[in-house]
Amino acid sequence: MSQSETGAVSGALARFVAATRWEDIPPAVRHEAKRSLVNFFAVALAGCRDRTLDLATGVYKRFSAGEQATVIGRRERCDILTAAALNAASANVFDFDDTHIPTIAHPTAPVAPALLALAETQPMSGRDFLLAFILGVEAECRIANAVSPSHYARGWHITSTCGVFGSALAAGKIFGLEPRALVWALGSASSQAGGLVETLGTMAKSVGVGNAARNGLLSALLAREGFDGPDAPLEGVRGFLNVTSERARPDEVDGALGQRWEILANTYKPYPCGVVLNPVIEACLELARRPELAGAAGRIEDIEITGHSLLRQRTDRPGVRTGREAQVSAQHAVAVSLVRGKAGLPEFTDQAVADPALRALGAKVRFRDDDSFAVEAARVAVRLAGAEPIVVSIEAARGGPKRPLSDADLEAKLRELCRGGGSGVEPEALIQAVWALDERDDVGSLMKLAAGVN
Amino acid sequence: MSQSETGAVSGALARFVAATRWEDIPPAVRHEAKRSLVNFFAVALAGCRDRTLDLATGVYKRFSAGEQATVIGRRERCDILTAAALNAASANVFDFDDTHIPTIAHPTAPVAPALLALAETQPMSGRDFLLAFILGVEAECRIANAVSPSHYARGWHITSTCGVFGSALAAGKIFGLEPRALVWALGSASSQAGGLVETLGTMAKSVGVGNAARNGLLSALLAREGFDGPDAPLEGVRGFLNVTSERARPDEVDGALGQRWEILANTYKPYPCGVVLNPVIEACLELARRPELAGAAGRIEDIEITGHSLLRQRTDRPGVRTGREAQVSAQHAVAVSLVRGKAGLPEFTDQAVADPALRALGAKVRFRDDDSFAVEAARVAVRLAGAEPIVVSIEAARGGPKRPLSDADLEAKLRELCRGGGSGVEPEALIQAVWALDERDDVGSLMKLAAGVN
Repeated sequence: MSQSETGAVSGALARFVAATRWEDIPPAVRHEAKRSLVNFFAVALAGCRDRTLDLATGVYKRFSAGEQATVIGRRERCDILTAAALNAASANVFDFDDTHIPTIAHPTAPVAPALLALAETQPMSGRDFLLAFILGVEAECRIANAVSPSHYARGWHITSTCGVFGSALAAGKIFGLEPRALVWALGSASSQAGGLVETLGTMAKSVGVGNAARNGLLSALLAREGFDGPDAPLEGVRGFLNVTSERARPDEVDGALGQRWEILANTYKPYPCGVVLNPVIEACLELARRPELAGAAGRIEDIEITGHSLLRQRTDRPGVRTGREAQVSAQHAVAVSLVRGKAGLPEFTDQAVADPALRALGAKVRFRDDDSFAVEAARVAVRLAGAEPIVVSIEAARGGPKRPLSDADLEAKLRELCRGGGSGVEPEALIQAVWALDERDDVGSLMKLAAGVN
Repeated sequence: MSQSETGAVSGALARFVAATRWEDIPPAVRHEAKRSLVNFFAVALAGCRDRTLDLATGVYKRFSAGEQATVIGRRERCDILTAAALNAASANVFDFDDTHIPTIAHPTAPVAPALLALAETQPMSGRDFLLAFILGVEAECRIANAVSPSHYARGWHITSTCGVFGSALAAGKIFGLEPRALVWALGSASSQAGGLVETLGTMAKSVGVGNAARNGLLSALLAREGFDGPDAPLEGVRGFLNVTSERARPDEVDGALGQRWEILANTYKPYPCGVVLNPVIEACLELARRPELAGAAGRIEDIEITGHSLLRQRTDRPGVRTGREAQVSAQHAVAVSLVRGKAGLPEFTDQAVADPALRALGAKVRFRDDDSFAVEAARVAVRLAGAEPIVVSIEAARGGPKRPLSDADLEAKLRELCRGGGSGVEPEALIQAVWALDERDDVGSLMKLAAGVN
């Protein structure tokens, strides 16, 4: 067996995870963790009955040993690895989950499901859970920072690729692993890091996101038994950072540990779309409320949207065919927001996309790049036949770092998505349980509140 | 659900896999497949009781639903996904498995275990098995060709990263999937492609290799249920080829399909080491037989090995600490071959590495680069105190494409490794069963011959 020493960067991260106590976590960080979890249950309860989850659950359940863990919003129960995978997939299937602004990673989906599954098989206090969750998110976001921006740009689905490390360290923290074993867990996680941007908009994406949660947990379980790995799985010459980034910055992993907290850069979406669309949708919803545009969609001649060039690069998708694609299509988002005055999940379905009126309206969208706009800003100008354009500008969209969703907004999101998701879950008890997590003795029992009753 | 069209390259590969029949497979290809399988059982029976497998089996078994499938050389039985993972890990744990020369990938480990596990849960003739195996190997090796050489050089463990596609298509072939569903399987496989060179020499490597077999099979199971994926998981802008290669050559995937067969470029190792060490070991074994060197190891002053610069780049590893590392260390390989006159698995253990005499002798190794040497050639010059060097040159090492192991060599390898592996398996019946595979009605029953009896 290898007499491993730990590498400098992987070792520093592992020592930090091993040493950090609940008392070391600032109050704002603790609260943000709860906000992330309210949002997590909201999006998991929205996604849990999607066809992707129906198909995945059907196959995965055949390879599940026992029924120790809850599948959120469903009646099936699974072993902890399977439940971790399915719950991560549910939370991310609509890309409506949280966004770590520096990297556009979704940090909660890979980490929370691993811990929630574990909590159903061993005693776990709310504080231990929150501490491990915060540390797992910290690790995956720091690793994501270290490989950004070239990592995602090249085609790595950063939520999956980096998430597996967060899950591994979070579970390892619950197991009380020593730093050396935590580095081993990072090593087995590094063997399982994968996920491609090419799969976005298809079911295959969810396999990768589910694996991030599942395989991180598996890596920690292996490390606990002495299953070893390389000394420097992150910073090694052929380690994760160098292999998946054109210009890795390892100091992002171990710099100022315990001084800055990545979860404070986490945000929550008001609309089930790529975050760059937030200000566009907000402008369109305001336009839809203007009396002069009431019932006038058929007379719109031209729609000009102005924003940072990233807006066009990420969302110029005319003629999309599915609800999934519509979530990253400015053409569809603009049309549906203007016509329906709403931009919730029902506005981004295959049926919504098939509406010929929306397709016709979307075809009138023109982009204007202006890099003086922040990514969270946009201007939408709508012109009716023979009239002057009606213009709405948004300086900072809701859901962005400058105008975060409030706690009440997040509760409302959970209530609405829970209602629409078809699970029959009663949201109020779950909401209260999450806000009181740090007073809870037994996190496992919380999952009873999230099990599907239909 | 996505109305997928298939991309040009992924689609062509899928159509080839769907359309190819047993009658289309040339006799030499059929026979090479059997040779690959003899070698596969040899190395799996060698690795099955390694500590890596003991630990992995202990953890994986807890998450295995049922006992449908055999774990080679062990008494445990597992579900088919778990058995696929463990059997792939066994076959590769010592890096003693087959080598696809153009890419240095190990093609059999990810593919055969998925099919063998399936064969224990559904009727499968030997011809159907061999056909699916040949097509799976063809697919993974072509994908490996398309991303080489930058893929491995950057740090991707090509056996794992490309193997998952081979497993997916092999299983999909058994399921009789249509081309569109085979592309979906490639899509879910692309979400799961991973594995880093940094993990070589540690247990973590085996997680990635196991996943290649497991997750390819899982991808085919998902695709069979309609679980969709991107149109072009391989050649898409953010697909596997572009993301994991600096200069992808998609035509390597779909060029001359059915006209050249990659399994004909497969080779089998006589020694449990990196293939570039083959000629060096062979020279040292010959030197060890020279009367003037008998018992003279202590008087060796200098050892010069001359070969292609790749030899030095891949194997200049003094002071290795573990048997695993020793397998890619010229210093250890030279020392142990000279002193013991053997180079089998017992010569590459932690105990062998710990021998101070071998360490001292290994420290006397000097490299001399000469790119006029082929990779399968080397010269070793040993100089005793006060004497002229004794020189042995090897033009083409055994096990390379010019001097492939014979069928009898492969049988002998299986017998020897089976005896050393500790499984108690009786090799003769297994050997005969593999050679007669194309006459067998039921491949599943073959696995009874490979189950551990100790």
